[in-house]
Amino acid sequence: MTVSQPRRITDLGFARLDVDRAERTGDPEVVFGEGKTPAQIVATLRALHEAHPGRAILATRLSEAAITECAEALPEATLDPVGRTAVLGRGETRGRVAVVAAGTSDLPVVRECATTIGVFGAEPDEIIDVGVAGLHRLLAQLERINEADVVVAVAGMEAALPSVLGGLVGAPLIAVPTSVGYGWNLDGVTAWLATLNSCAPGIVSVNVDNGFGAGVAAARIARRSVR
Amino acid sequence: MTVSQPRRITDLGFARLDVDRAERTGDPEVVFGEGKTPAQIVATLRALHEAHPGRAILATRLSEAAITECAEALPEATLDPVGRTAVLGRGETRGRVAVVAAGTSDLPVVRECATTIGVFGAEPDEIIDVGVAGLHRLLAQLERINEADVVVAVAGMEAALPSVLGGLVGAPLIAVPTSVGYGWNLDGVTAWLATLNSCAPGIVSVNVDNGFGAGVAAARIARRSVR
Amino acid sequence: MTVSQPRRITDLGFARLDVDRAERTGDPEVVFGEGKTPAQIVATLRALHEAHPGRAILATRLSEAAITECAEALPEATLDPVGRTAVLGRGETRGRVAVVAAGTSDLPVVRECATTIGVFGAEPDEIIDVGVAGLHRLLAQLERINEADVVVAVAGMEAALPSVLGGLVGAPLIAVPTSVGYGWNLDGVTAWLATLNSCAPGIVSVNVDNGFGAGVAAARIARRSVR
Amino acid sequence: MTVSQPRRITDLGFARLDVDRAERTGDPEVVFGEGKTPAQIVATLRALHEAHPGRAILATRLSEAAITECAEALPEATLDPVGRTAVLGRGETRGRVAVVAAGTSDLPVVRECATTIGVFGAEPDEIIDVGVAGLHRLLAQLERINEADVVVAVAGMEAALPSVLGGLVGAPLIAVPTSVGYGWNLDGVTAWLATLNSCAPGIVSVNVDNGFGAGVAAARIARRSVR
Amino acid sequence: MTVSQPRRITDLGFARLDVDRAERTGDPEVVFGEGKTPAQIVATLRALHEAHPGRAILATRLSEAAITECAEALPEATLDPVGRTAVLGRGETRGRVAVVAAGTSDLPVVRECATTIGVFGAEPDEIIDVGVAGLHRLLAQLERINEADVVVAVAGMEAALPSVLGGLVGAPLIAVPTSVGYGWNLDGVTAWLATLNSCAPGIVSVNVDNGFGAGVAAARIARRSVR
Amino acid sequence: MTVSQPRRITDLGFARLDVDRAERTGDPEVVFGEGKTPAQIVATLRALHEAHPGRAILATRLSEAAITECAEALPEATLDPVGRTAVLGRGETRGRVAVVAAGTSDLPVVRECATTIGVFGAEPDEIIDVGVAGLHRLLAQLERINEADVVVAVAGMEAALPSVLGGLVGAPLIAVPTSVGYGWNLDGVTAWLATLNSCAPGIVSVNVDNGFGAGVAAARIARRSVR
Amino acid sequence: MTVSQPRRITDLGFARLDVDRAERTGDPEVVFGEGKTPAQIVATLRALHEAHPGRAILATRLSEAAITECAEALPEATLDPVGRTAVLGRGETRGRVAVVAAGTSDLPVVRECATTIGVFGAEPDEIIDVGVAGLHRLLAQLERINEADVVVAVAGMEAALPSVLGGLVGAPLIAVPTSVGYGWNLDGVTAWLATLNSCAPGIVSVNVDNGFGAGVAAARIARRSVR
Amino acid sequence: MTVSQPRRITDLGFARLDVDRAERTGDPEVVFGEGKTPAQIVATLRALHEAHPGRAILATRLSEAAITECAEALPEATLDPVGRTAVLGRGETRGRVAVVAAGTSDLPVVRECATTIGVFGAEPDEIIDVGVAGLHRLLAQLERINEADVVVAVAGMEAALPSVLGGLVGAPLIAVPTSVGYGWNLDGVTAWLATLNSCAPGIVSVNVDNGFGAGVAAARIARRSVR
Repeated sequence: MTVSQPRRITDLGFARLDVDRAERTGDPEVVFGEGKTPAQIVATLRALHEAHPGRAILATRLSEAAITECAEALPEATLDPVGRTAVLGRGETRGRVAVVAAGTSDLPVVRECATTIGVFGAEPDEIIDVGVAGLHRLLAQLERINEADVVVAVAGMEAALPSVLGGLVGAPLIAVPTSVGYGWNLDGVTAWLATLNSCAPGIVSVNVDNGFGAGVAAARIARRSVR
Repeated sequence: MTVSQPRRITDLGFARLDVDRAERTGDPEVVFGEGKTPAQIVATLRALHEAHPGRAILATRLSEAAITECAEALPEATLDPVGRTAVLGRGETRGRVAVVAAGTSDLPVVRECATTIGVFGAEPDEIIDVGVAGLHRLLAQLERINEADVVVAVAGMEAALPSVLGGLVGAPLIAVPTSVGYGWNLDGVTAWLATLNSCAPGIVSVNVDNGFGAGVAAARIARRSVR
Repeated sequence: MTVSQPRRITDLGFARLDVDRAERTGDPEVVFGEGKTPAQIVATLRALHEAHPGRAILATRLSEAAITECAEALPEATLDPVGRTAVLGRGETRGRVAVVAAGTSDLPVVRECATTIGVFGAEPDEIIDVGVAGLHRLLAQLERINEADVVVAVAGMEAALPSVLGGLVGAPLIAVPTSVGYGWNLDGVTAWLATLNSCAPGIVSVNVDNGFGAGVAAARIARRSVR
Repeated sequence: MTVSQPRRITDLGFARLDVDRAERTGDPEVVFGEGKTPAQIVATLRALHEAHPGRAILATRLSEAAITECAEALPEATLDPVGRTAVLGRGETRGRVAVVAAGTSDLPVVRECATTIGVFGAEPDEIIDVGVAGLHRLLAQLERINEADVVVAVAGMEAALPSVLGGLVGAPLIAVPTSVGYGWNLDGVTAWLATLNSCAPGIVSVNVDNGFGAGVAAARIARRSVR
Repeated sequence: MTVSQPRRITDLGFARLDVDRAERTGDPEVVFGEGKTPAQIVATLRALHEAHPGRAILATRLSEAAITECAEALPEATLDPVGRTAVLGRGETRGRVAVVAAGTSDLPVVRECATTIGVFGAEPDEIIDVGVAGLHRLLAQLERINEADVVVAVAGMEAALPSVLGGLVGAPLIAVPTSVGYGWNLDGVTAWLATLNSCAPGIVSVNVDNGFGAGVAAARIARRSVR
Repeated sequence: MTVSQPRRITDLGFARLDVDRAERTGDPEVVFGEGKTPAQIVATLRALHEAHPGRAILATRLSEAAITECAEALPEATLDPVGRTAVLGRGETRGRVAVVAAGTSDLPVVRECATTIGVFGAEPDEIIDVGVAGLHRLLAQLERINEADVVVAVAGMEAALPSVLGGLVGAPLIAVPTSVGYGWNLDGVTAWLATLNSCAPGIVSVNVDNGFGAGVAAARIARRSVR
Repeated sequence: MTVSQPRRITDLGFARLDVDRAERTGDPEVVFGEGKTPAQIVATLRALHEAHPGRAILATRLSEAAITECAEALPEATLDPVGRTAVLGRGETRGRVAVVAAGTSDLPVVRECATTIGVFGAEPDEIIDVGVAGLHRLLAQLERINEADVVVAVAGMEAALPSVLGGLVGAPLIAVPTSVGYGWNLDGVTAWLATLNSCAPGIVSVNVDNGFGAGVAAARIARRSVR
Repeated sequence: MTVSQPRRITDLGFARLDVDRAERTGDPEVVFGEGKTPAQIVATLRALHEAHPGRAILATRLSEAAITECAEALPEATLDPVGRTAVLGRGETRGRVAVVAAGTSDLPVVRECATTIGVFGAEPDEIIDVGVAGLHRLLAQLERINEADVVVAVAGMEAALPSVLGGLVGAPLIAVPTSVGYGWNLDGVTAWLATLNSCAPGIVSVNVDNGFGAGVAAARIARRSVR
């Protein structure tokens, strides 16, 4: 019997690291955890950390097993089981991003986004439990929200929050629709369609539950902002 | 050559009138104008008016030509070219319905709904231009909205208005998604999905642009309400 | 290793209770059980019960484990494993809601709806096994249905029941499409589309399987009704 | 300049007639009118009539212009401007098909179906205006419906009619969903999904508005039926 | 603690049997197994068998556990683990139905259909492995297929089989699209759309994988057929 | 005969102007031209221009008739028949936005976006005809693109351009999917899905053909940017 | 008034010609006619013909007006009003492509495909009216089809033709789904899904009605083929 | 108790082998592993190998258990656990196919495709990790890609790779969309739509993740190619 092998050997046996990317775009390195074994994640984080000792390295979408493995193998890592992230190293930050969420159910997306913002060079400010069905709580946080350079609005269900915020703030506003819902919400497509059809102009959005993508975009904007 | 004929002759040649319906459900008679000629609409309105002289008769979805024909042939009718309705006769009203709308583009649906409410026995109160992107205008009308027995929220695009209202009022709340939008909104399905996935509990909804259906439901509730 | 923590501490560590909501909308407090641990559900129910001792508190979408935990920890609670609800305390009721269902498969939605109606202040009357394919059974219950202030029609598959009822009753009629089906029914969207396109005017609807939402709306209408 | 020509010359220049088909399947010849000029339709009907003088020939989906052209050029044809059909010649019929419809808006589909049934060898019986929202009218026709060998239920909107009939009759039952609707009904897909998810077993269906297809199937069944 | 109970007691505690249905439509009784426990299925089968000793009783969509339970508790039952059916009793049959399938993957649907045909009073003839990609095998069975009173074509993937058969046979033809596929086939909707858009006129269809529904329809037609 | 009137009189009879909005969000006033008559557009532009003489006013989605009417009535306006916009007045600009497009078919969206950017306070730089199928042309413009503070990538069909740009530039990147296509592209949803699923992280997007929305967002970011 | 102008001047004022493309891919130049004026099409064809005198130039999707304009202005062009194409010049051909179609309704797609094949360097052989519902006509052409180097199967409705051909021929097989249909066929998506889910392995497909794309692919394969 | 049996006995009890297929189309035999037991797969491979000793036999979509069983029972087989294939025997190859992939996540599809190419008679060349977000890596492999007779582009997410390749190579190009994605990508339909709407002409595609289908098509083209 012959079990055939992949023909192209790469640095780590399962992935070819593109160590030049950071130089080209100014962004840190990221390991997407889904579909990788805990051992692969630890090895990749280590290799990237050694290649870029002066910068932060981020891993996202980690399973519980991967979080546990990282906790043991990488004691210097900062881990977040809710947002399912691991961070190695630390970079400088500049500018501030308010990450506003309609409910506690959206917390995993909020945390993935906030951690990403930190790694990509800006300061996140999480403001949760300020959904539109309890408008007074949202209005109570308005001053704090308006101090940010960029606002990320994380919202599931009918995703009315970005529209309400759009009429209240002048900063760049990124909407993250989430798959959170109590019934037939098409796994977040309702929220997604809502963010793209907002009556408040200038709202941009990312894919459903994509806290990482929104964090990258928000940090890129915030770290170049001047107040 | 032989042109075959429909086999079943009815009262008016093109429709069999069900004059007992009002007795069975307590509702007035309605003529759905789409697909009918102006002459057919006038004839049907007249026949129903004669059968029910003491009650209001409503025609909806009238074309411009039908409005003009009604204006000439039925001088006693009340016509609304925006809501595309005609009303013959008048009934008593009981209870009040606030019809709240996010924008002037939703006016045709608002007017169809308000006229229906009047014909089905309650008093409509139209409150337009109070979308969520200008929250202060909505809050300025809150007291007036809270005086109604039923609230109908008409909203297109991402339809955030019903959710915001749902956190502010305690009366029964009916959402009417509309097909109003500036881009790819799937002809109102975005608004529709939004109303069905609202974070505010107890919101019920009707089909896209169905001001008539919401009006029927709202009037049924309002005319039985006690404050 | 550092495991980061959520920054905003709330009353119970995992949810910020909005104890003013009842005053604002007149509605009781509700705990949505999906995604919460049994211990969290018990703790939240207790906290809300202490904050509102004179009112009923409802928990919905409870897992089997949560039902068991509630049975042990909250002996005064009324539990329904079919409708997956728990109720603490009791309020007054006013008006009556008929909850009509096409089949026994819809029972979980019927029960969630009926329990919600009771907690939100009206009297539910469950009438099951009266689908349109056995019309005589439905007609046999018509007098009883017509005694209600509001009718809720729960129906899966092609959801013909609301339309048939719409021609027979004059009370406000709320349709709840369910995901019950024997084949490819798009997880209830067939039933949902059917309720929104009913040939009987004035039917309003809620999301698929949303017995809770229909119950809230029905109770709000029924408790203000005068016969 | 050279305008290129189709390479394959056929009998009529624009269509190759398959005059053997009738022998193979026992079915008459049919001309589908959509996309053909009035002159092409007349020529094709004539050619088929000459090839099969002892059998009926059917043309469907005729435009107004084609109906007019047929009236002038083929005086012996039976034309139906509502169902948009033309028939030349006449065959024997055997068995009876009840074509039941929920509303007058469905009449074009009913007529296309009934004419097809006649051409394909059975006797059609049109029974219209018997929708489920007025149940007493449907029940009043039940005996007549039960005398048919096959029942075709034509229904738009939520298409509840086939399900109600399915519980009342024992004959083979074919549902024809139509695109008739007052709002967002996805051009008949709501009715279509409803017929396929009927709670009454044994209902088969055809494409939206396909009165022709249902007619072919119904006639094939009826003309082989024994009571 | 109080666990609330369903209010309506029925014959078996979990289902109200409609023993009059057979008289009304001439069809046998059927137990849909999905969502029922093995014990409930056995009890329902027994009760129906006692109520209708001279007729066949069918149970469909049985789990492996239900099949095992039936094998032990109902030794006189005929069980089919592939088609997931159980049959108690036996009725007369009249007429023949060819059940033609494109591949062995469609066998569960074929078997459910064939068993249903037998219970509903006609003789099934299973002809499998005759897909269009191996046309010679299909043509080799053509004479046998043409001897049937009704043809059921079971086909997944692109479901070309019904169209090919439609050009070859003159008997009533029912298509059953299946969810069988090797890639992204939308769980059978590709096959479903194909059957509804067939270029061969007169094909009717049922829901995806609905061998039972096709069997009911086919048997109703076949047992009334005269050759 | 009585033709009913809208009850709420506003400044211009057909729209209530919200002249405070600019103060609240820092954005200029915009008139959405779709559904408005040329006369209404001219009147609204004039009223807003008088209310904000020191700022630019933008009108979008103008019909040919509206462009002609503006050309006559508002000689000081800057009109763009391709992008369908009119601009009155002029504000200061700060920062630069590259608007990159895959093809000339996308030009209307590019122009609407560029004009919006100018009105909202940044400098647009249009770079067209640089699609991915001719990679060398895109690479030839890379230096110029990298000088911008924000990049807007306008792309129809399969919308590969944003992904390719995402790997080449480090500035914030906004994708505008367009409905441009040669076949079945679902009116732009293919491009839309592509932008949301880009393999290049940090891309945000707006609705199909929404050059205006992308322009608002891009200008907000650019005018706060520091290089 | 100032009407702004596009900033980038190209060769023809409305399009930048990429005269190097042919060298890079070996393909001829093509003008996509949709959205271009007749004058623009004539001018572009002329410019490309002058740049590549020794090669064929193709224009597709021409309106009637454009065909007329080409007939007058470019007398040496070969025009096809059915396939909506114009060809200038002539190249060598190598290899043969059978373009097989199910019906005459598919002729425009067949012709666009055949003309494209000729321009891209292979010999087309059109074989129409050989749908699966008349299997004997298809089998009669089998020998001729099997002589081709590549087979293109053009089919609308349920698109069974590619699957049937897939079991009969061994040459590369390209399916072109068309939007031809008699009812609700989702504008060709039914045919499209069918071609992608074919039970015959190795079938590749292009977008709906994309005869051009299939022609390009087929010619590329055929002109490199050795028998 | 009687457990009914399938009526048609075939060679192996569960499948009728079509040993003539290879003669008819020139293709080798293939066993589709999904839904078959490891024992059935081994038995079928053996039977086919004995029937065609001089040709390669392929099994695809093998489970881990099936791979293990094949390793033990068929020591002469070549197994690939990544691509989930088994191969018995060996045929000659002619022509070369480049299989190009955007990322390592697409490896299973790449391997299934490459193995299929080998079995169907051409030489595969796998070139992975050359996605469009890192354009320099793709350009570095361009010479090698251009040496192939056919190019297969395997790509998930937004599938921009085929379009970029389409502008760079002149060989026949087959796109394989994959279901690889980081968020809401509709299980590959985004990639699928992208390949069908590519701006680069002449790209053909197969179903999502269908490496096998692309391999069959590519090998058929390559083995007839002349350079």
